[in-house]
Amino acid sequence: MTDNTPSVSAETHRLILLPSGRRGDVPHGTTVLAAAAMLGVEIESICGGRQTCGKCLVALERGTFPRHGITSADEHLSPPDEAEIAYARKHGINLSERRMACAARILGDVLITVPEESQARKQVIRKAAGELTIEVAPAVRLVYVEVEPATLGGPADWQRVQTALAEQWGLHDLTIDPVILRRLQAALREGDWKVTLTIWQGREVIRVAPGYDERLYGLAVDVGTTTVAAYLCDLRTGAVLATEATMNPQVRYGEDLMSRVSYGMTEPGGVARMHRAIIKALNDLAAQAAAAAGIAADAITDAVLVGNTVMHHLLLGIDPTYLGAMPFALATHDAVDVKARDLGLTALHPGAMVHVLPCIAGYVGADNVGVLLAEQPTLDDGISLIVDIGTNAEILLGNRERLLSASSPTGPAFEGAHIKHGQRAAPGAIERVRIDPATGAVRYRVIGDERWSDALREGESLRPTGICGSGIIEVVAELFLAGLIDRTGRFVPDAPARCPAVRWQGTLGELVLASAEESATGQPIVVTQKDIRAIQLAKGALYAGTRMLMDRLGVDHVDRIRLAGAFGSYIDPYHAMVIGMLPDCDLEHVVAVGNAAGDGARLALLNVEQRALARRAARQVEYVETGGTPIFQERFVEAMTLPHAHDPFPRLAAILPPGAANR
Amino acid sequence: MTDNTPSVSAETHRLILLPSGRRGDVPHGTTVLAAAAMLGVEIESICGGRQTCGKCLVALERGTFPRHGITSADEHLSPPDEAEIAYARKHGINLSERRMACAARILGDVLITVPEESQARKQVIRKAAGELTIEVAPAVRLVYVEVEPATLGGPADWQRVQTALAEQWGLHDLTIDPVILRRLQAALREGDWKVTLTIWQGREVIRVAPGYDERLYGLAVDVGTTTVAAYLCDLRTGAVLATEATMNPQVRYGEDLMSRVSYGMTEPGGVARMHRAIIKALNDLAAQAAAAAGIAADAITDAVLVGNTVMHHLLLGIDPTYLGAMPFALATHDAVDVKARDLGLTALHPGAMVHVLPCIAGYVGADNVGVLLAEQPTLDDGISLIVDIGTNAEILLGNRERLLSASSPTGPAFEGAHIKHGQRAAPGAIERVRIDPATGAVRYRVIGDERWSDALREGESLRPTGICGSGIIEVVAELFLAGLIDRTGRFVPDAPARCPAVRWQGTLGELVLASAEESATGQPIVVTQKDIRAIQLAKGALYAGTRMLMDRLGVDHVDRIRLAGAFGSYIDPYHAMVIGMLPDCDLEHVVAVGNAAGDGARLALLNVEQRALARRAARQVEYVETGGTPIFQERFVEAMTLPHAHDPFPRLAAILPPGAANR
Repeated sequence: MTDNTPSVSAETHRLILLPSGRRGDVPHGTTVLAAAAMLGVEIESICGGRQTCGKCLVALERGTFPRHGITSADEHLSPPDEAEIAYARKHGINLSERRMACAARILGDVLITVPEESQARKQVIRKAAGELTIEVAPAVRLVYVEVEPATLGGPADWQRVQTALAEQWGLHDLTIDPVILRRLQAALREGDWKVTLTIWQGREVIRVAPGYDERLYGLAVDVGTTTVAAYLCDLRTGAVLATEATMNPQVRYGEDLMSRVSYGMTEPGGVARMHRAIIKALNDLAAQAAAAAGIAADAITDAVLVGNTVMHHLLLGIDPTYLGAMPFALATHDAVDVKARDLGLTALHPGAMVHVLPCIAGYVGADNVGVLLAEQPTLDDGISLIVDIGTNAEILLGNRERLLSASSPTGPAFEGAHIKHGQRAAPGAIERVRIDPATGAVRYRVIGDERWSDALREGESLRPTGICGSGIIEVVAELFLAGLIDRTGRFVPDAPARCPAVRWQGTLGELVLASAEESATGQPIVVTQKDIRAIQLAKGALYAGTRMLMDRLGVDHVDRIRLAGAFGSYIDPYHAMVIGMLPDCDLEHVVAVGNAAGDGARLALLNVEQRALARRAARQVEYVETGGTPIFQERFVEAMTLPHAHDPFPRLAAILPPGAANR
Repeated sequence: MTDNTPSVSAETHRLILLPSGRRGDVPHGTTVLAAAAMLGVEIESICGGRQTCGKCLVALERGTFPRHGITSADEHLSPPDEAEIAYARKHGINLSERRMACAARILGDVLITVPEESQARKQVIRKAAGELTIEVAPAVRLVYVEVEPATLGGPADWQRVQTALAEQWGLHDLTIDPVILRRLQAALREGDWKVTLTIWQGREVIRVAPGYDERLYGLAVDVGTTTVAAYLCDLRTGAVLATEATMNPQVRYGEDLMSRVSYGMTEPGGVARMHRAIIKALNDLAAQAAAAAGIAADAITDAVLVGNTVMHHLLLGIDPTYLGAMPFALATHDAVDVKARDLGLTALHPGAMVHVLPCIAGYVGADNVGVLLAEQPTLDDGISLIVDIGTNAEILLGNRERLLSASSPTGPAFEGAHIKHGQRAAPGAIERVRIDPATGAVRYRVIGDERWSDALREGESLRPTGICGSGIIEVVAELFLAGLIDRTGRFVPDAPARCPAVRWQGTLGELVLASAEESATGQPIVVTQKDIRAIQLAKGALYAGTRMLMDRLGVDHVDRIRLAGAFGSYIDPYHAMVIGMLPDCDLEHVVAVGNAAGDGARLALLNVEQRALARRAARQVEYVETGGTPIFQERFVEAMTLPHAHDPFPRLAAILPPGAANR
C-alpha cells in the first residue's frame, strides 16, 4: 500500500463524500481533490495541488460502513509523502485525522468528510427578514502558479505565466492589466518563480503577489445621500472583517439630491468637486476599514458600489443634471464595471475593479437594486412591499410573478427637515412619544437614553434638542389615537381641555412636548399644526405611490412589509400604520430590515452570479412613473387623511382603540 | 420613373461597378450603397445612409455600353429627393455628375464609377525599397447614429445608443469606456440626439462627438534611444498630416541603453522618472504634431508605439532591470493594448488606446518588428538582409520560408561616440570624404552644405565641427582604397609620403582632415589609428552577427540589403561594403529605407490586420543569440580585417580598384 506514484489504473474504488452524500466510482490512484471534482464536489485549492496552501484538508472516516457498502475504509489512502509531512509538521496538522486532498490518492473504498472550511463554495447566510443563503463565489479568484525560470532566448515572463496558467489550471487567453504587468517581474523573482495571481471574471490578471498569498479582499459600499457605509469582506470566507461609516462629504454642497443636482448645474466645476469629495470619502473609508481589520487597503481587489441615481452618477463622475428635470434621463441604467483607478480610488489595489449595480429608472437607483438583491421579494409567497424611505421613498411591490417599482417624492419631513423643531436622528432627539387618551398626559424618550420623560426624578430632564422623524410620526399617531386631532389632521376644538400640552396659537393648535425649562435649547419643543400637515403630505406621497403600485398589481392589501434603510429601523410600525403611511397589513409582518442596500452590495461582492441576477431583476422590474401624473395627484389627496380617506384597513382597525378609525 | 419609395421588388437590374469591374444583378429599388455591398464593393459611409456625411458620392456613367450588355444607363437611378438636393446645394455638388450612393436607388441597368475617395478601404502606398500597398483599415472606426430622444421612464441614454448601433449598424454588445460615458449625455443633447462614436476594435466606444464628426486621427511613434519620431495620421485617408521629432529626454539619465538600465537599477525612483520623461516627450510631440496639422490633440484616439526592448519597457513603466543581464528576460514579448491614460498620455483623447508592437527577444524589440512590417522581407524572392544600426544593430535575414534575427553589440562608434572628433550627424559634421589614390589629396563635405572642401574660393572654409558616423566610415574606406592603411587597419609605413594629410604621432598614424584654421573648433580634425580600430570593432560586430545568421541559413551572400534607421540613410553603401560592414551583395541592391521602424508603426496604425501580422511575424522569427557565444567571438575576430579575412566578396571585388582587395 505504498503506491505513491501518480499512475492511474483502470481499477476503480467507491468514494463517498460527506456531508453532501455524493458517491461514485473513481479510478485507482486518483487524488481525493480530483476524485471529488469528478463527483461534482469542489474542494478549495488555491495552490492547485502543490501542497502549499493547505486549503483542501479532508477527513478520512475509519471503520466499516455496511450501509454504504464499504467493508473497510482504513488505510485506503496513499500514505503521506515528504511534502505533506513537512507541511503538516509546520502547521500542526495531525495526519491521522486530516489529509491534504491534493496529496492523498485513493487506493481503495473510502468515506471522506469535506469540512465546511475546505468546501470551495462556502456559504454565507444573511439573517434578517427571511434568511438568504448564498455561496461565496466572488468575481475575483486566487490562483497560485509555479512558473518556469527565465532562459536565454526563451519566452518572456508573462508568456511563461500564461503557459503555467494553461498547464496548471486550464486557464487560457487570460490578459494582464498593463499597469499590473509592471509588477510581474519582481514578484516572480521575489517568489522564486512562484506567484499568486488574482484573476477578475476569469479574464484578466489584476494582481500579482510573490509566492503563495491567500489575501483576497473586497469592499461593499452603500453610498447614501447623507451616510456612506462600507463593509470590508474576506472574499475567501465571506466574512465581514470591518464595517465603517462616514458622512457623505457632498452634504456641504447640498443636503438633498435636488440641491446637489443644482449645485452641479450652476457651479462651474461643481460636478468634478462632488465626484472628488465622494471618492476621497471612499478612499478614507477603505483605509479605515482595512486598518480596523488589520489588512493593507491595497490588498482590496474588488468593490461593489450602490447608491441612488444621483449618487451613482456623481461617483462615476457623470453630471447628474439630466436627472434633475423631466424626463429624468440616466446616462446608463446597466451595471458598470470600471477600474478603481479610473475613478481615483487609489486606496485600493492599482488593478482593483469596481462594479456598480444597475439602476432601474431615473429615480430608482442601484441602491434599490441592492435592496432587491438582499430582500429577494420574488422568492416570497404572497405580496411583499419594500419601502426605503429617504427624501425620496423607493417602493418595490410584487411577488414571484411580477415586481413593480416607483419613487415617491416624500420630501424631507421624515428626516426632520421642514419641521419646526425637527432634527436628524441623533442623541438628544425625541424619538418616542406617548399620549394617554384618558388624561392627556404626554411622555417621550430621546435617542441615547432609555428612560421615559415621566420616569425621571424631581429636577431631572432628558434635555431634548428637537424631534426626529420617528418621533414626529409617533406624535401625529398618538394625537389621532387620543382624539386630539381629527382625520383631517386638525386639532379638535376641545383638545386643550382634554390635554394640557395642547394650546392654541391664533386659530391653529400645537402640542408642547417639552417646556423651555426641560429642553436643551431653552426653547419649548412644540409640534405645530403645520408640522402635522407636513407629515400628512409626506405620508400621503408615500402611500399614494404604494397605492398606485397596488392598483397596478390589483391588490388591496399586502402580506409583508419591509422597511429598509436607517429611518426604517427607527420608526415604529404600529404608529406608521396608524397614520396611514403604509397599506393594510398584519402588524407582525411589518419588519425593519436595516441597510438592505448595503447588504445587496455585499451579496454582489461575495457572489458574482448575484450581479447577473441584479441585472436581470433591474430589467424585469416594471417602473411606474408617479411624479406629476393626475392619478398620483388624486391618490395623494385621498391619502392625506388619517389613516386614509377611502381604503379599508380591516387589519389595522382590529388593533386600534374602539372608535379611533371613525374620528 | 419617379419611384422613390424604399420598396424593393423581385425585378432585378444589372449593376456594373468601376473601376473594380464587379458586376451582378440587384433588386429593383436597392440603393447603390446597398447594391454595391451585395457585389462586395464597400463604399465609404460614416453616417450609415442618412445623407449627412457625403462620403459615398458616385458617378453614373451615361450612354450605351453594349460591351457590358447595357443598352442605356441614363435615368436609371431614382431622382434626388429633398435631402439629397439640400446637401448638394450646401456642398456645391452637381447632381448630374455625382450622386449619393445612399440615396440613389437602382431602377434600371446602370454602370457606376466609385471614385477613389468614396471607396471604403482606401489604399496607401509606401514607396521605398519595394512598394508596399496597404488598405486603410485602422483599429478605430467612426459611426454616426441617430438616437431616440429620452422619454420619461424609458431606457437610459447609453442603452438607446446601443439600440441605435444595433438597428442602424448591426453592431451588438458594444461597451463604452466608463470615463467616456461621462461625456455621452451632453454630446447627445448638443447634437440633437445625433452623435458620432469612435469604436475601438469593434468592441468599445472610446469617443463620443456631438452630431456628425469625421475626425479620426492616430499617432505612430518610433521611440528611439536618442530620437523620438512621431507621425500624425488621418485615419480616414491614411495621409500623414504632420511629422515631428525630438530628442529622447531620457538621454540625460544615460546615453545608451545599458546606462539607462543601470540608472533604473541604482537610482531610487529612476524607472518612474525615465517613464515620466518619455511620456512627457510623447505628450509634447502629440501636441506639436496636432498644432502643425491644425487639429486638436485630444481628437487623437489611437496610437502605435515601437521601440527597442528597453524603450518598450520604460514607456510602459516597466523596470528594464532584467534586460540588463542574462538571461535578458522581457516582462512580455507580446503586443500590448493599453489605455493612453494608463500611461499618462493625457494629450490624447481621454479614451484613446495605445498599441505597442510585440518584441522578438531580450534585445530585439518592437522597433524591429516595425521594420519587419515595413519591409516585409518574407514577401521577397531571394535572401534579404535588413540592418538597423544604432548602439545595437538589429539584424533580420531571411526569405519567404524562414526569417532569422539577431542583435549585435556594435557599440556607439557608428554614432560618432568613442571617436576622437566624432559627433552626431548634425550641421557642420563631416559626412563625406574622398582621398585621391594618385595624389593623396583629401576633400570632404559637411552636413548642411553641398560643396566639397576643394571647391571653395580662397579664404572660404566649411568650418567643420567634427566627423559623424558616415564620415568616419568613408575615411576608413578611402584610406584602404588609397592603400594608406592595410587590411589590418594599420597605416602603411609610406603613408605620410603618399598623402600629405597623414602624419605619425609616435608609432601611430593619423589623418588630418581639416586643419585648426579650417575647423570651427580651432582644433585640427583628425582620424586616429584608434578611431580606425573603433570602426573595425563596430563593423566586425555587425558583420559577425550577420555572418552567424547567414551560417544558420546556409548562405554566403545575400540578394538584397536594406539599411534602416537614420544612420542607414546617411551611410554610402559602397564605402560600407568596402570596409566589410555588410556581406557581399550587388551594390545596386543595397538601399537605405529610412525610418522603417516608424513606417512599421504607421502601417500598424493604419491597418489593424498589420497588428495581427506583426504578432505572427514576431513569433515566427527565429532569434539567434550572439552575445558572448564562442562562435560569435570567432566570427568577430575574423571580421575585423578590411573588408574581411576569409569571406569571398566577388561582387565587391568586381567594383574595387585593381589590387585593392589584396592589400
